[in-house]
Amino acid sequence: MRLTQYFLPTMKETPSEAQIVSHRYMLRAGMIRQASAGIYSWLPLGHRVLKKIEQIVREEQDATGAQEILMPTIQSADLWRQSGRYEDYGKEMLRITDRHERDMLYGPTNEEQVTEIAAAYIKSYRQLPKNLYHIQWKFRDEVRPRFGIMRGREFLMKDAYSFDIDAESGRRAYNKMFVAYLRTFARMELKAIPMRADTGPIGGDMSHEFIILADTGESAVFCHRDFLERDVLALDVDYESDLQPIVDEWTGLYAATDEMHDPAQFEREVPAESRVSDRGIEVGHIFFFGEKYSKPFGAIVPTPEGGETTMQMGSYGIGVSRLVGAIIEASHDDKGIIWPEAVAPFKVGLINLRSGDDDCDAACDDIYDKLNAAGVEVLYDDRPERAGSKFADMDLIGLPWQLVVGPRGLKNGVVELKSRRTGETEELPVAVALERLGG
Amino acid sequence: MRLTQYFLPTMKETPSEAQIVSHRYMLRAGMIRQASAGIYSWLPLGHRVLKKIEQIVREEQDATGAQEILMPTIQSADLWRQSGRYEDYGKEMLRITDRHERDMLYGPTNEEQVTEIAAAYIKSYRQLPKNLYHIQWKFRDEVRPRFGIMRGREFLMKDAYSFDIDAESGRRAYNKMFVAYLRTFARMELKAIPMRADTGPIGGDMSHEFIILADTGESAVFCHRDFLERDVLALDVDYESDLQPIVDEWTGLYAATDEMHDPAQFEREVPAESRVSDRGIEVGHIFFFGEKYSKPFGAIVPTPEGGETTMQMGSYGIGVSRLVGAIIEASHDDKGIIWPEAVAPFKVGLINLRSGDDDCDAACDDIYDKLNAAGVEVLYDDRPERAGSKFADMDLIGLPWQLVVGPRGLKNGVVELKSRRTGETEELPVAVALERLGG
Repeated sequence: MRLTQYFLPTMKETPSEAQIVSHRYMLRAGMIRQASAGIYSWLPLGHRVLKKIEQIVREEQDATGAQEILMPTIQSADLWRQSGRYEDYGKEMLRITDRHERDMLYGPTNEEQVTEIAAAYIKSYRQLPKNLYHIQWKFRDEVRPRFGIMRGREFLMKDAYSFDIDAESGRRAYNKMFVAYLRTFARMELKAIPMRADTGPIGGDMSHEFIILADTGESAVFCHRDFLERDVLALDVDYESDLQPIVDEWTGLYAATDEMHDPAQFEREVPAESRVSDRGIEVGHIFFFGEKYSKPFGAIVPTPEGGETTMQMGSYGIGVSRLVGAIIEASHDDKGIIWPEAVAPFKVGLINLRSGDDDCDAACDDIYDKLNAAGVEVLYDDRPERAGSKFADMDLIGLPWQLVVGPRGLKNGVVELKSRRTGETEELPVAVALERLGG
Repeated sequence: MRLTQYFLPTMKETPSEAQIVSHRYMLRAGMIRQASAGIYSWLPLGHRVLKKIEQIVREEQDATGAQEILMPTIQSADLWRQSGRYEDYGKEMLRITDRHERDMLYGPTNEEQVTEIAAAYIKSYRQLPKNLYHIQWKFRDEVRPRFGIMRGREFLMKDAYSFDIDAESGRRAYNKMFVAYLRTFARMELKAIPMRADTGPIGGDMSHEFIILADTGESAVFCHRDFLERDVLALDVDYESDLQPIVDEWTGLYAATDEMHDPAQFEREVPAESRVSDRGIEVGHIFFFGEKYSKPFGAIVPTPEGGETTMQMGSYGIGVSRLVGAIIEASHDDKGIIWPEAVAPFKVGLINLRSGDDDCDAACDDIYDKLNAAGVEVLYDDRPERAGSKFADMDLIGLPWQLVVGPRGLKNGVVELKSRRTGETEELPVAVALERLGG
């Protein structure tokens, strides 16, 4: 993409309404625009990141055998009356009356809806286990939306729902999601720590939140320092094998959110020098709640033994849009965002130091064409701007690699390749630079 | 995907509530489930088709230089007051009051919202032309939703918006979309005819609907028979060239929707034997409306001459979810759906005639693994069902190719390859069949 044609409205000023760094940078980098309180439009750069995160989430769900569906945003209030949550949910639920005076709502989550589907179609234990997930917009009418898309009202969530014949099988489904979450966040280069968590309005007796440590996190969290050094990237998993050892390993050390924190236990189990008290951003939350929804919806199957049983369920959420902010909170400097390569909107920023100069233009056009032909995503700053402004914008939007083409280097046949993360630069012949970038 | 694991709730009975063939087959093939009136969940098979259609639409939009964004579903009523459409839109608009008593709405379309964005960021004629599109759920509170997802209330739409410096450039933007639409529908093997159309609540002075002829269409349409014989697939386009000749060719013959129909002109211009009066399904609608929205939103840019001008706009919609139904209406027989290959949920249905038989199972497993390894999408019916039921289900869900593996054939080293569209079958050695399917 050429920047002269791209819709990338960056700004130099720091927007006064933004209190945290991810919100500031997302506004300044032209990723989002506020539509109304807690509701945002995703501009082209932001949209690209959102789609990459969504795709990673999807691939890791699919790898477990979960199947993608898509439930609507607008639900009938009657569904929620059946589970008893219609009144419970309070003012966070956006309630709607349609033209025929029927009570509807904008789904804040989908336990009721998916259980209705499972109850309608799953009629034999042979159809179990199943895990159905979707990636869909949700709405929670937060009283004070803030921090940009981190605590917005309309947000994109992946929510999966497992259906099993018994609690043991349900535990296996829970473990699959637990491990899939470790892998999902690791692919985004996030250190997400699974912490014992409160089940809140979803309910159930087993629950973990996946938490990124960050000063700007919404709540206090407590964990063992060893979590911070663990590497999850090598975790290549056979999902049909027993995953309990992995889960045990990741739940064996103390880690709890504020609501579940037990100071006495923390001090007893964790040596003083390993106690981490920090703030955390929740990026995922998994629940096992057995029959809480399957019972009111009559999600019952005959058993192999000739009896019948109520399905065991869990639900598993990832805040897809929130992850965009969480990644920025975890990966930035004072110049801007530093995207992990897997979610970067483009891999390479190509900077023409002297747009209009025939040699520079020709060299850049050639590099641009070759990178595109090789399928390397490149944003080419071909604007007639001064170099300083191009560097500032490129640092702000945080592409992993900057390829700088100037008249002096070209005379010697070299260009400069810079890593946004380390700041290291190298002068390289064009062909070598292209090879490095996969072009 | 193995059918024993897939969530594919097919039904034998014809659902009584479904009046048209696409609705019947989508329910019977386990593609959708009604959530409430005019609102549907997309089950795995339906979701796959929806995503394929979405991706074709996206690729053809991108090819024109349009850029993808994503605007939220919930909009502020104030935006619509600014354009004057808040009252005009009537009861089809789903109106919502949030917890702070602010008037909101579920967007039925996005002219206001995108114009607010353009007005905020496009500050120079150098930033023009631009075309921003998104693929997002919309809601129109139809008084009588019917025909399944064809006339639902919550539906997925691609809507693009062009911004230009003057009417001539605006016309070029319109032409790009016109041609992109021809290509988009052709890739889905749909004969979509551009027809002069009423502009309705969007407004403007130039508009075409893209119409599929079908008995079950919602409205009467009139056109020259020659349209039905035209082939658009060869249309390889340079979008920077002058597209007017293509547009002229496709608008040169009579074609009009009911609202724009002029019987006298029809009889004057079209020989009696070439007059087609039929019913049509609208799958796309494009509009050029100049300053209708840019004016109230102050979407003004300085001109090269030093003055300033209001941007010229158009908007361009494709009914993404509706297309699923439209394709079925256009491509089915009395046994079920016949998917065009580009949008088929899987390319191949692998039928094991005797699941449980060692030889059949081994041959099928081998074929299944090879097709998957080659990236050929295959649905493997490995259920312990009788052959008749497997054939019926496979015909119903309409995958382009059926690969039938039975004990008798295997003795002679052959399998049967059947085209769902033509019904033609061939006995082939396994390796040859795999090669045919790209495996």
